[in-house]
Amino acid sequence: MMVTLKDIAMECNVSIATVSNILNGKSKASEKTKNLVLEVVARRGYKPNYMASRLRAQKTRTIGIIIEDITLFSSPKIIEGIMSFLEKNSYNAILENLRLYSKWGKNWYRKREYYKAVADAVQEMQAIKVDGIIYVAGHARLIDSIPSDTEIPVVLAYSHSDGGLYSSVTIDDVFSAAGMTDFLIKKGRRRIAVITGTEGNIHSRDRLCGYKKALSDNGIDFDEGLVFSGNWERSGGFEACRKIFDSNVKFDAVFCFNDLMAAGVYDFLSEKNISVGKELAVAGFDNREISEFLNPPLTTMEIPLTEIGGKAAAELLEKTENSSDKICDFPVPCILKERDSVL
Amino acid sequence: MMVTLKDIAMECNVSIATVSNILNGKSKASEKTKNLVLEVVARRGYKPNYMASRLRAQKTRTIGIIIEDITLFSSPKIIEGIMSFLEKNSYNAILENLRLYSKWGKNWYRKREYYKAVADAVQEMQAIKVDGIIYVAGHARLIDSIPSDTEIPVVLAYSHSDGGLYSSVTIDDVFSAAGMTDFLIKKGRRRIAVITGTEGNIHSRDRLCGYKKALSDNGIDFDEGLVFSGNWERSGGFEACRKIFDSNVKFDAVFCFNDLMAAGVYDFLSEKNISVGKELAVAGFDNREISEFLNPPLTTMEIPLTEIGGKAAAELLEKTENSSDKICDFPVPCILKERDSVL
Repeated sequence: MMVTLKDIAMECNVSIATVSNILNGKSKASEKTKNLVLEVVARRGYKPNYMASRLRAQKTRTIGIIIEDITLFSSPKIIEGIMSFLEKNSYNAILENLRLYSKWGKNWYRKREYYKAVADAVQEMQAIKVDGIIYVAGHARLIDSIPSDTEIPVVLAYSHSDGGLYSSVTIDDVFSAAGMTDFLIKKGRRRIAVITGTEGNIHSRDRLCGYKKALSDNGIDFDEGLVFSGNWERSGGFEACRKIFDSNVKFDAVFCFNDLMAAGVYDFLSEKNISVGKELAVAGFDNREISEFLNPPLTTMEIPLTEIGGKAAAELLEKTENSSDKICDFPVPCILKERDSVL
Repeated sequence: MMVTLKDIAMECNVSIATVSNILNGKSKASEKTKNLVLEVVARRGYKPNYMASRLRAQKTRTIGIIIEDITLFSSPKIIEGIMSFLEKNSYNAILENLRLYSKWGKNWYRKREYYKAVADAVQEMQAIKVDGIIYVAGHARLIDSIPSDTEIPVVLAYSHSDGGLYSSVTIDDVFSAAGMTDFLIKKGRRRIAVITGTEGNIHSRDRLCGYKKALSDNGIDFDEGLVFSGNWERSGGFEACRKIFDSNVKFDAVFCFNDLMAAGVYDFLSEKNISVGKELAVAGFDNREISEFLNPPLTTMEIPLTEIGGKAAAELLEKTENSSDKICDFPVPCILKERDSVL
């Protein structure tokens, strides 16, 4: 059994407030009372109950972080960005890992259990009285799983809010893909094949939009024949690259919408004895760890994951501390990493 | 202000137990009392306070996971292994990320603040009444930072306990490095250069021990001149490889004690136009994601991270449910991943 302030107060025949004040060093009680209380505390082994005092306080300075899956490459750095910001502002964090990908594979968000898992996590966070919630998505989607009766502020990281209900911090996919395309054009490429991600995906759509914008800005006509579908995976990049070659379309660069597919393009070119960089420019997206280890190292767009986490935390504190109810979408631009796959 | 069971009880002029029983559906109170209580609950918006009920219960079926740093490559999979096991056994997890590496760099464990951070986390976990704690280390060390007055079971994952105070689940470095060495010997190599990690490190020491054991088992004399120091990093692998070549020692394979250093060896060999696999066998350790993306893919030892997490969780439940106080060290063997860097 845990010893409570009340137990101490009863044994000393003083009020709970008196015990609390003495333990906090701000009591005006007599020396005799102080000594009595401290003696009883020492004997009975009272420990301040952090969670219980949290429950009593109006604000807990604790933020709940709900993570779709901690094993996805983007999650740890986003969490680090959130926690770094919270720590600087003297906030605590409670993490909840939903394990959606680990449990249900890549189409988890089409499952009904997904909605229940999110609702349970939000309810639990509210029950333990966090001041607000940051929802860390595994990839960009329109998130519609936050229960509508959620009573505390929610900010989305790495995803958009369906219906604009919550502020969100996302990648600026249009701007960043335009930046990569523009870079390739500046390097003298005009026939840039692209390998998109899965169809219907927001990243795929927006990156393609950025690609078209950069072509247009540079006075180059868009050619539908240069667009090939991938699936975000290495094997999909390999297959798409085979299709590019089979199509007999003219091209002088391959822009893959993620690094894993670029690795598949490397695999295909290696089989064909075509030298990446020297003979054909290849670019990726994400700046995953592998991109620096490919040979040659891959030119790619770095997603500023820790910055996304930090901005999400800043936006949440804006909501909890200043009760701001303004809903904003913060698109964060990616950073070009120039390496030897584009010469 | 939160409405409590007591508020409801006072307004209805019944006991707290009566309200609680009615809400839990196991009351023997009159219909009139039931209706009154339910009406007041509905009007005043009472919500069961999960954390408070946890505080009252003897066992909470909640496990605390203290993570040295979530951004280290090993952490997410170990957490996944722990949570997967806990979920199967109807336990909850509360995660605390200490951010040690992010805050203090790679020598965090020599800092006094490190001990305070661990002590604070353990105290917090005890305050919220978890049944036990799993401490997820960033790399193998003798962990001496768990406060000696910790009153709940603790199990270490990915590290050893200083003085054998806590059960721990670790890599079987000796067995696994011997396995890799034996594999290289079976492939016809007899002059295997090794690049160790930082000196004094447990992984370095035990892997070297396994290397020597396999040589001895195969009747090959150990040659001190084949041992080169690395630092676990790509640049260190590059430098160590240069030293191997400069030393004029005869060698037919390079066994790196982690994959990042093996990547540095690839870099050096690429500069020298020496073909990995065809001309020189290179092996790594860890099976980090990058190892499959190196060209050629790297033969390495996979650390079964999710299994380490799962075993740590199983051992903790053994302690909390069966009050076992037996301290065990569980060394988990790694799994050979044969790829084209060794032909």
